[in-house]
Amino acid sequence: MNTFGTLFRLTTFGESHGAALGGVVDGMPPGIEIDEAFIARELARRRPGQSALGTSRKEADSVELLSGIFEGRSTGTPIGFIVRNTDQRSGDYADLARVFRPSHADYTYYNKYGVRDPRGGGRTSARETVSRVVGGAFAKLVLRRYGIAVSAYTSQAGAVALEKTYKDCDLALAETNDVRCPDPAVAERMAAHIRQVKAEGDTVGGVVTGVITGLPVGLGEPVFDKFHATLGAAMLGINAVKGFEIGDGFALAAMRGSEANDVFVPGQDGRVHTATNHSGGVQGGLTNGEDVVFRVAFKPVPTLLRPQPTVDVAGQPAVVEPRGRHDACVVPRAVPIVEAMAAMTVLDFLLQQHARHLR
Amino acid sequence: MNTFGTLFRLTTFGESHGAALGGVVDGMPPGIEIDEAFIARELARRRPGQSALGTSRKEADSVELLSGIFEGRSTGTPIGFIVRNTDQRSGDYADLARVFRPSHADYTYYNKYGVRDPRGGGRTSARETVSRVVGGAFAKLVLRRYGIAVSAYTSQAGAVALEKTYKDCDLALAETNDVRCPDPAVAERMAAHIRQVKAEGDTVGGVVTGVITGLPVGLGEPVFDKFHATLGAAMLGINAVKGFEIGDGFALAAMRGSEANDVFVPGQDGRVHTATNHSGGVQGGLTNGEDVVFRVAFKPVPTLLRPQPTVDVAGQPAVVEPRGRHDACVVPRAVPIVEAMAAMTVLDFLLQQHARHLR
Amino acid sequence: MNTFGTLFRLTTFGESHGAALGGVVDGMPPGIEIDEAFIARELARRRPGQSALGTSRKEADSVELLSGIFEGRSTGTPIGFIVRNTDQRSGDYADLARVFRPSHADYTYYNKYGVRDPRGGGRTSARETVSRVVGGAFAKLVLRRYGIAVSAYTSQAGAVALEKTYKDCDLALAETNDVRCPDPAVAERMAAHIRQVKAEGDTVGGVVTGVITGLPVGLGEPVFDKFHATLGAAMLGINAVKGFEIGDGFALAAMRGSEANDVFVPGQDGRVHTATNHSGGVQGGLTNGEDVVFRVAFKPVPTLLRPQPTVDVAGQPAVVEPRGRHDACVVPRAVPIVEAMAAMTVLDFLLQQHARHLR
Amino acid sequence: MNTFGTLFRLTTFGESHGAALGGVVDGMPPGIEIDEAFIARELARRRPGQSALGTSRKEADSVELLSGIFEGRSTGTPIGFIVRNTDQRSGDYADLARVFRPSHADYTYYNKYGVRDPRGGGRTSARETVSRVVGGAFAKLVLRRYGIAVSAYTSQAGAVALEKTYKDCDLALAETNDVRCPDPAVAERMAAHIRQVKAEGDTVGGVVTGVITGLPVGLGEPVFDKFHATLGAAMLGINAVKGFEIGDGFALAAMRGSEANDVFVPGQDGRVHTATNHSGGVQGGLTNGEDVVFRVAFKPVPTLLRPQPTVDVAGQPAVVEPRGRHDACVVPRAVPIVEAMAAMTVLDFLLQQHARHLR
Repeated sequence: MNTFGTLFRLTTFGESHGAALGGVVDGMPPGIEIDEAFIARELARRRPGQSALGTSRKEADSVELLSGIFEGRSTGTPIGFIVRNTDQRSGDYADLARVFRPSHADYTYYNKYGVRDPRGGGRTSARETVSRVVGGAFAKLVLRRYGIAVSAYTSQAGAVALEKTYKDCDLALAETNDVRCPDPAVAERMAAHIRQVKAEGDTVGGVVTGVITGLPVGLGEPVFDKFHATLGAAMLGINAVKGFEIGDGFALAAMRGSEANDVFVPGQDGRVHTATNHSGGVQGGLTNGEDVVFRVAFKPVPTLLRPQPTVDVAGQPAVVEPRGRHDACVVPRAVPIVEAMAAMTVLDFLLQQHARHLR
Repeated sequence: MNTFGTLFRLTTFGESHGAALGGVVDGMPPGIEIDEAFIARELARRRPGQSALGTSRKEADSVELLSGIFEGRSTGTPIGFIVRNTDQRSGDYADLARVFRPSHADYTYYNKYGVRDPRGGGRTSARETVSRVVGGAFAKLVLRRYGIAVSAYTSQAGAVALEKTYKDCDLALAETNDVRCPDPAVAERMAAHIRQVKAEGDTVGGVVTGVITGLPVGLGEPVFDKFHATLGAAMLGINAVKGFEIGDGFALAAMRGSEANDVFVPGQDGRVHTATNHSGGVQGGLTNGEDVVFRVAFKPVPTLLRPQPTVDVAGQPAVVEPRGRHDACVVPRAVPIVEAMAAMTVLDFLLQQHARHLR
Repeated sequence: MNTFGTLFRLTTFGESHGAALGGVVDGMPPGIEIDEAFIARELARRRPGQSALGTSRKEADSVELLSGIFEGRSTGTPIGFIVRNTDQRSGDYADLARVFRPSHADYTYYNKYGVRDPRGGGRTSARETVSRVVGGAFAKLVLRRYGIAVSAYTSQAGAVALEKTYKDCDLALAETNDVRCPDPAVAERMAAHIRQVKAEGDTVGGVVTGVITGLPVGLGEPVFDKFHATLGAAMLGINAVKGFEIGDGFALAAMRGSEANDVFVPGQDGRVHTATNHSGGVQGGLTNGEDVVFRVAFKPVPTLLRPQPTVDVAGQPAVVEPRGRHDACVVPRAVPIVEAMAAMTVLDFLLQQHARHLR
Repeated sequence: MNTFGTLFRLTTFGESHGAALGGVVDGMPPGIEIDEAFIARELARRRPGQSALGTSRKEADSVELLSGIFEGRSTGTPIGFIVRNTDQRSGDYADLARVFRPSHADYTYYNKYGVRDPRGGGRTSARETVSRVVGGAFAKLVLRRYGIAVSAYTSQAGAVALEKTYKDCDLALAETNDVRCPDPAVAERMAAHIRQVKAEGDTVGGVVTGVITGLPVGLGEPVFDKFHATLGAAMLGINAVKGFEIGDGFALAAMRGSEANDVFVPGQDGRVHTATNHSGGVQGGLTNGEDVVFRVAFKPVPTLLRPQPTVDVAGQPAVVEPRGRHDACVVPRAVPIVEAMAAMTVLDFLLQQHARHLR
């Protein structure tokens, strides 16, 4: 179903070329000041057409908040919102209705529903994530009252990877360049790589790294809904994501216990800390108070500016002609989406943890 | 909460050293023949003490089915089951109550609940997964009626990795050796590696690869509950898992669209297929009818046969003395757990897909 | 949370005097023809200002469907919709912010959320039900393909009750008069009663009877989610509802088993039927193929056209002055809301039942 | 599904004549002292064979707690429990497999699942409620720490009704007689009535009244999950229940707003109260701090000690011969079940309300 979360919930609707996208934020704690300019800024970060690297499709992505707010504060009732589609060129997609684009969702959706909405991929378009960014912005407004910050950045764009860890970067720098990499020199190499790939009519994937700071100890719900299991599902539910790891992730498979263990030490702040953070801030499925660090792998955008062989709806060989306006690398624009999904995950666990405590 | 699934659901309970573990399987379709010997075999695959590579803890792991079955067939009502704990040496763990073991869940659980059950890690013990294997066995009994098979194998144990893909192996061979690797030569190298690590009082992690065949097109629920998002959460909810990828996963981040795209071709069976399977059987979050292939990263077991520095419950420096009986590499025994979680995920999506269809 | 249903789900948002109300219909089966004129007619049935009996507040209640429909048919993706508020006289309610209206939700909401939206009761206004009627209209579009019909009528308005059962009435007549009673003579007495009560500045409650025909045997989910338990919750979740009964309901408490039992008989249609229907079409929590019959009790509207004593936000004695535009008897307008909630309940159970069946 | 609740959850399993019934209590707050004697007493209240009025079936109903408790306190992890069936006379029911008993669940279950477990009604037996009483006992252990008390009593047994309200009775007296009526004189008339009915081979229904005291203001979740909607579903999910009302319930339908409104008054305790309680402690779907009062209608037990006409599995006319051991009036034994379901409902809402609050 199109709902994410247990106590803090986002339900979304809308297709790429329909009248509007939108959603309902349910479980927003009451009395929170709603900073509409902040929400607009978050949306602007996701917006296509921000730079020469991305699609030329332009969307204002102006959100209209319809309920749940009174005199600038949340009332605790659901917040309905819509984002109208303004730049709909349905004609661009008309002849796509007859073929299945490779590595797109055309074939699978058609088989699932028996219905095809070919306009820009319909519901499967990444345009759907606009609603997630709105939901995440609301979550961030709550989390900052607890001193919890969620940030993300591009750590790999195709063949170019940032070798440093987040500890060695100033994450604020990620927002100063088009690829959202916190190391300006690497950012420039990434940008050059993406431009080159684009010039070849091709695309590349990449990796987004997420960092969550200020977390209390104990968030997450055993045994199935571990913190990183729910966070992982949140990430894997983003378009084009094919992998998720927390802490040292897949590298831990080759490590020994004596290397990988995060030894507890008394902290100077009077709290217990770990000397290292191979675990990525989660042990036994619960946050341990260290920074949560995770990585999300994105496949390349499957729409190419070249013809591709495929089959048509009758199962016969056909060719997909290059169409539409697409990013050569979706990763920079995925950064705010990763943050949004992470923020909603954290807030939901925080509310669940509140529920447990007797008073 | 301790429930997994939407229409096919497993709810589990039980700790390492309590009276019993168990659970409730809800949503089992009616009229399915219950092959109790099959369930016992699945449990035996997870059982500790199967080989010299693992822990010396021995558990019969005999399951008692308490309801939901009449004259050898499922009735459609919930199936309650218990597995009694028989080899409880609580004394082994008594002095552990005062310290937090590194990279275990002691510290996080204590902070979450304010209560500590030090007996073998309590609920956080991997012993909890016995209930998942039972749930998975029931799911497999249903899936095989649809021609869907779920299998898994060890593709990496510490420093030793299987380089072949599943297509180049006979997966049936995985069950013929202690490490559950389908290549006997690699299996022997893995076993030697684990023995060496164990002799050093250390542990290693590894990777389990899962393969699901016979799937229909269209399983998965947009947009948040994509097939691989739910499957990923199922895997990340298994103890010690730190990473998940589907298809080529993280490797896709460095690939170009022109390499990564799975081109559609007419199949000899009259169905549409893809020429390659970089996507791992999932496109747009829905199964595309190809084999689903995924990889699951396990960190090393944190319990070492060496002293480790840590802090105690008062936050003061302390030492964890080596105790208990543990595996040097948990991955071989995790194979049936990966299969169980995957089988339940698939069946749940299958039932959800049935719900959609009008008749 | 503001979501109703499991597989067919309605999530709603919106307040009486906000920008818009609306919701998301999730789980709509694909390929259903969307009859927008039917949806508009259902909304018109709920609309205030239909007759001299009701409030003078006038609302066009025009719904805008934003997604999930392509070329006139449902696509299986969520259907977002909004209904703009056009006749917002917030000024009417300004001074109500200082007092708690008797038997309204002012006091309880204020204590729950610590926030007060005094504009027409905010989210607690029955205006919220406009979204339910939209959701119910979609459900009806599906149900009629299965030959399932949901209807309701006013069987009691204050002191005037219809003594006949639905079997002795032509239910189509209910829509021919302002009170929605299928007996024209009784309808006229009800209307006269409501006019009299209104003239006295007072209000009355009433009872709506619901009838569902064409149901298959076996809908409902044991043991907690019995058909009538979920239906009952659906009804008790409607504003002003204080009681629910199925079949002979409370009257069964005084009956003997030998009177109350519905004896099975072979039907002329080749199916099994019951000779009587004291059970109201549900046995053991599941539909038995007979008509489902239920009754829903509404309390009187608490807003009176007279001053009422109360306390203010400081807990001091105060007076509520008569304000706003309200119905003297809400029951006639509640009829389509009862139908809507019943239709969504039935469709959800139908989809759940589909899920169970192996193919 | 067989799960009740959102944050405090009970999942149950088990049939009348299987090996055992049981369940899982999930979401139990940690650190609560587990009074096992109290749980046993609650079970004893539900147990058949308590008096000459009931069935002669005897069950020890001894519960075994399998997990989630350490050193006498809840750990916050799930509590698994089983109650073994000891007095299973399956032979009693063998020939019932061929006919459908009137007003029982035989026919509906058979059609739903295509499988028939004729042993004592299988899962449809009220014996399933033993698990609910266990779940309710855990909830009560938490609620009493908040000063919240849940009690219930028989207010009608067939033709004999208690005319007084709960305010005019000493509810503690309900446990001093076999019918659980707090007025000893009326209790005696009820008992005589039931004995008479039983002597005639017949059965009667009745009404249970529930009272919840000590509630905070604001429990319940708008708009669908109103306090009394969820409470109503909890009650309607109990075997044989056909009606539910809160406060004055159906009587409110005939009342005027000027009579029915509960006017707010400053309380001597410094809190706001209502001068009357027609609303039954709920306004706008949320508790208002007054006592919650509700009534639950039970139909007569359908098993009679007389032959009854019916059809067999082939749809042909047949006769149900009197068999088994059943109560002539189930209402006295339903009292602890009503309390259990109410206690779980309240605790779940309390935890949900905790979740909302920022700290």
